[in-house]
Amino acid sequence: MSVHTTALVPALTNIATRLRIDSVLSTSESGNGHPSTCCSAAEIVAALFFAEMRYDPRDPQHPDSDRFVLSKGHAAPLLYAAWAEAGFIKREHLLTLRRLDSDLEGHPTPRLPFVDVATGSLGQGLCAGVGIALNARRIGSDYRTYVLMGDGETAEGSVWEAADVAAVHKLDSLCGITDVNALGQSGPTQWQHNLEALAARWVAFGWHALVVDGHDLSQILQSLDRARQTAGRPTMILARTVKGKGISFMEGKGGWHGKPIKKGAELDTALGELRSQFVPETGPAPSIAPPKTVRRPPAREGTVGPTAYKLGDSVATREAYGDAIARLGSADDRIVALDADVKNSTFSEKFEQRHPERFYQTFIAEQVMVGAAMGLASRGAIPFPSTFAAFLTRAYDFIRMAAVSNLNVKLAGSHAGVSIGEDGPSQMALEDLAMMRAQPNIAVLYPCDAVSTERLVERAAYHAGPVYMRTSRPKTPVIYGPEESFEVGGLKVIRQSDADVVTVVGGGVTVFEALRAHEALRQQGVHIRVVDLYSLQPIDAASLLRCAAATGGRVITVEDHYPAGGIGDAVASAIASGGFTVRRLAVSEIPRSGTPDELLDRYGISARHIVAAVQSLF
Amino acid sequence: MSVHTTALVPALTNIATRLRIDSVLSTSESGNGHPSTCCSAAEIVAALFFAEMRYDPRDPQHPDSDRFVLSKGHAAPLLYAAWAEAGFIKREHLLTLRRLDSDLEGHPTPRLPFVDVATGSLGQGLCAGVGIALNARRIGSDYRTYVLMGDGETAEGSVWEAADVAAVHKLDSLCGITDVNALGQSGPTQWQHNLEALAARWVAFGWHALVVDGHDLSQILQSLDRARQTAGRPTMILARTVKGKGISFMEGKGGWHGKPIKKGAELDTALGELRSQFVPETGPAPSIAPPKTVRRPPAREGTVGPTAYKLGDSVATREAYGDAIARLGSADDRIVALDADVKNSTFSEKFEQRHPERFYQTFIAEQVMVGAAMGLASRGAIPFPSTFAAFLTRAYDFIRMAAVSNLNVKLAGSHAGVSIGEDGPSQMALEDLAMMRAQPNIAVLYPCDAVSTERLVERAAYHAGPVYMRTSRPKTPVIYGPEESFEVGGLKVIRQSDADVVTVVGGGVTVFEALRAHEALRQQGVHIRVVDLYSLQPIDAASLLRCAAATGGRVITVEDHYPAGGIGDAVASAIASGGFTVRRLAVSEIPRSGTPDELLDRYGISARHIVAAVQSLF
Repeated sequence: MSVHTTALVPALTNIATRLRIDSVLSTSESGNGHPSTCCSAAEIVAALFFAEMRYDPRDPQHPDSDRFVLSKGHAAPLLYAAWAEAGFIKREHLLTLRRLDSDLEGHPTPRLPFVDVATGSLGQGLCAGVGIALNARRIGSDYRTYVLMGDGETAEGSVWEAADVAAVHKLDSLCGITDVNALGQSGPTQWQHNLEALAARWVAFGWHALVVDGHDLSQILQSLDRARQTAGRPTMILARTVKGKGISFMEGKGGWHGKPIKKGAELDTALGELRSQFVPETGPAPSIAPPKTVRRPPAREGTVGPTAYKLGDSVATREAYGDAIARLGSADDRIVALDADVKNSTFSEKFEQRHPERFYQTFIAEQVMVGAAMGLASRGAIPFPSTFAAFLTRAYDFIRMAAVSNLNVKLAGSHAGVSIGEDGPSQMALEDLAMMRAQPNIAVLYPCDAVSTERLVERAAYHAGPVYMRTSRPKTPVIYGPEESFEVGGLKVIRQSDADVVTVVGGGVTVFEALRAHEALRQQGVHIRVVDLYSLQPIDAASLLRCAAATGGRVITVEDHYPAGGIGDAVASAIASGGFTVRRLAVSEIPRSGTPDELLDRYGISARHIVAAVQSLF
Repeated sequence: MSVHTTALVPALTNIATRLRIDSVLSTSESGNGHPSTCCSAAEIVAALFFAEMRYDPRDPQHPDSDRFVLSKGHAAPLLYAAWAEAGFIKREHLLTLRRLDSDLEGHPTPRLPFVDVATGSLGQGLCAGVGIALNARRIGSDYRTYVLMGDGETAEGSVWEAADVAAVHKLDSLCGITDVNALGQSGPTQWQHNLEALAARWVAFGWHALVVDGHDLSQILQSLDRARQTAGRPTMILARTVKGKGISFMEGKGGWHGKPIKKGAELDTALGELRSQFVPETGPAPSIAPPKTVRRPPAREGTVGPTAYKLGDSVATREAYGDAIARLGSADDRIVALDADVKNSTFSEKFEQRHPERFYQTFIAEQVMVGAAMGLASRGAIPFPSTFAAFLTRAYDFIRMAAVSNLNVKLAGSHAGVSIGEDGPSQMALEDLAMMRAQPNIAVLYPCDAVSTERLVERAAYHAGPVYMRTSRPKTPVIYGPEESFEVGGLKVIRQSDADVVTVVGGGVTVFEALRAHEALRQQGVHIRVVDLYSLQPIDAASLLRCAAATGGRVITVEDHYPAGGIGDAVASAIASGGFTVRRLAVSEIPRSGTPDELLDRYGISARHIVAAVQSLF
């Protein structure tokens, strides 16, 4: 710690007091919120924002600014108070906390320009921090990434996924601070104030760990200084604090989690105590150091380039996916890929081979894979995290929060459905479409062949907001020529005639079952319309309504997915306004091991079943 | 280690060789599977099954038998080979591996009586092991729980959640064994053979850790012996192994993950090498020690008892839930509850107050909360894990696997929807119904008042298989009298007349919006039918069809949930066979903070919007 920063202690002390006062006032005004957890972290935030971090308080999104992630999102009033102190928001605006007409929400969201990722689901901030720190490397910036966590949230496994990955990637620009106030929501944490035990965990996970008194500004400043000087590994500062610090009736007491101070005598007492803690400012006033701006060429959208596939080629969509992201990565260096040790199954290894410096291995840890992608996306990268679609369920809370943040994350899940075959139900994604569609702003794509896959990878990359792409394990024939275009929100009518009596809507592998059914029925003189619903969300309702109307209102959906939330529900919802209903073919029970063809047939989604369903309508 | 067990080494060596041979043969026969990972763990499994564990090989579900969880589920052929060696399954049956007509699936499922929980999604076994070990305490059994893990899977955060909880609960009957073969699917693990680094992690998490040579049976037996004698903390045995051990061309080689040996010359070579490893059996033959059987009274179903609520009382369903599980717990000691540090919000603290010995705190770690519940359920407990419904997304992969296993887990999620108010979107579950309904065998319940909540808690407890109950934050009026009955798969028509022109289907808080709309419309001379859809899955399609038919086919759904996968889709799917479609009112965008009433109105699901939707149909 330099003499300079030590001299700042009186001024920072007063900033911490002002942050406490603002946190108390805003939560009392709103009538709910978390003042106690703001009070425990006031010195930490004062030191970070007004002595340690380099940033531009007028431009929170400056690409070279140090980043701050409030993982303990319920301390939002403290964050807002810090940005008021920094001059970015007006102090009086703090009193709009949690109001419908205010962006100062109960937990931080990126509606606020100084919030990179929404927090409030505990244990996510450090994962995002990993991605934000990886991004600094990607863009050649020296910005540092600070993540403020609660002690209770370090029970979340995702924290240890992040710990492991940060150490593997030697992310020395990442610095975590744990506010160890020893109180969870419903009682003491399991470790209470045993900071040495907590430090031992971080050391065992390869981190530099420091234990400090979280209310001693000199110690905090010194530890931040040491963190900045530590090369080759990230630093975790474990700060012993008191929940409700500064307010006698709240300090270290249970029962104050998520409880504001009542206006009136109680609030007056608290404010009186806090105001008495102001000290004479003998030293210099703090000034915020600016970021080291790096000039960069403007980003430009790339393309996958012309297709190399020919009609009739047999290619798994997962392989076409890997190839497409690799090629797109050559045209746009914002494209990055993340893997959870299945790159040889998802074919993201093709990206790694071409762009090893933008390929991030998180090993078997899907939460940090998605969380790091969220952090990367929040700083301008276009990340493609991929694994087996089944294992994206592991990261659903992160996906949910990526949707809350509307982040530019491009999720890809391979090995969808029973068509994976012998590995059995644990490896089969049969709920992924439902899980993704449930988030109203996630685009859900499901290409059936290699050409549509590569075109949709391109569309996904430049679609604003989160995207999910489902790919399949088996090889499927290329059915689209190089001239075909595909849109987020589109579909393809791939068989049609004026004599069509039913519309059959499939996706992925079932498109080919529908084509087989079309051929079998044609030989019987029955004509069906076949739709490749490669975009489930948004969905081309107008075209579906036209198809339904043209085929007498008869619509059959067929999907390698459980019945709820997939293609059947998407189509039913899209055509309900026309008064049309849907006959659904889907996997309606927990499946078992077998060959792909056996399973498609056993679970009622093979061509034979489509033929029977068509015939049953007459 | 006793002299007795040392003498078993030659026989165990030969068992390990037979397990390798069987694993190689079955995977070669099926043409897919994972022989290499079976080979690395053969000595570990031989030692566990034929020297360490006490169990009845003719009755794998014996309540006092030691338990074995194969967390590295892709080593399924090894598990099957062990049970063949133990005599429970016929050795020739092993060759049916992964066939549609065989229960010997690609990854283990409870279709097999010796499998407690399905595995194959890595990082789950230790969580289940925590629950299985907690169950031993519950039933007063001395059985021990062994969990065999891969090294790669310890990157999963859920493993560290389990590590923490096992240490907090001093689960000394739990013993993990990590098969450290240093090779993941797509490359070396991040730690490779640095076993001391791995051991440091377990020690830092409060475990007893031992490092052994995983192919040295004496060392394995000795470590199991030490684990058994360790009191007050669980033990992790870190076993240095070689992937593909015993087959020269596979040993320690990349590229052999998930790859069987080709029949013919390659297989002959492997078998020749393995057979040459048989040793003379100089010592005694192993015999499996029987479990210490404890006699227990038969379990009997209990009841919550008569309701204490009166019509018009104002009670949050989350509070009625807490009260109901507490009361049911007094009548049936199989009922247990688990919490992730929100017991004062979900009201599971009411259970803790009455039954502290059957209340398990996992702190802020939802994956192990659900995983431990899965383990408990697999051994006869009826667990009610609960947290905010939004945070159950964190455990979705566990919920998926609970569905694959059809386990008796009774999930409860509180604070559903925008009606929680000011805390904002991170705390609002708006996809939970979709997530749960997507699993075809999870019953999904959503009571709107206290009486239906307590009755449905009772139904949930004794419903065979997984159940999800959604509860709400705000207080709602009691609308059902003590005589009302509720069924999994039922609904209540709560307002009806011969003049009804529309059926409005709500659930939870929107039932009361529908009732308000009913009243407002009635004053205009318009009559609507109001349905409380307290069971979304299974769903009473017949009653919904009758309502739809009686109201001219006009059906409106209203839900505090995103549009996809919730009440709207459930009703639409249920009444499609009648040719009826649904007009859906749901939260169609990412919401923000505000008061509950403001948000219900802002997002289009308040009484006013229902009235408008009804009017728009005419």
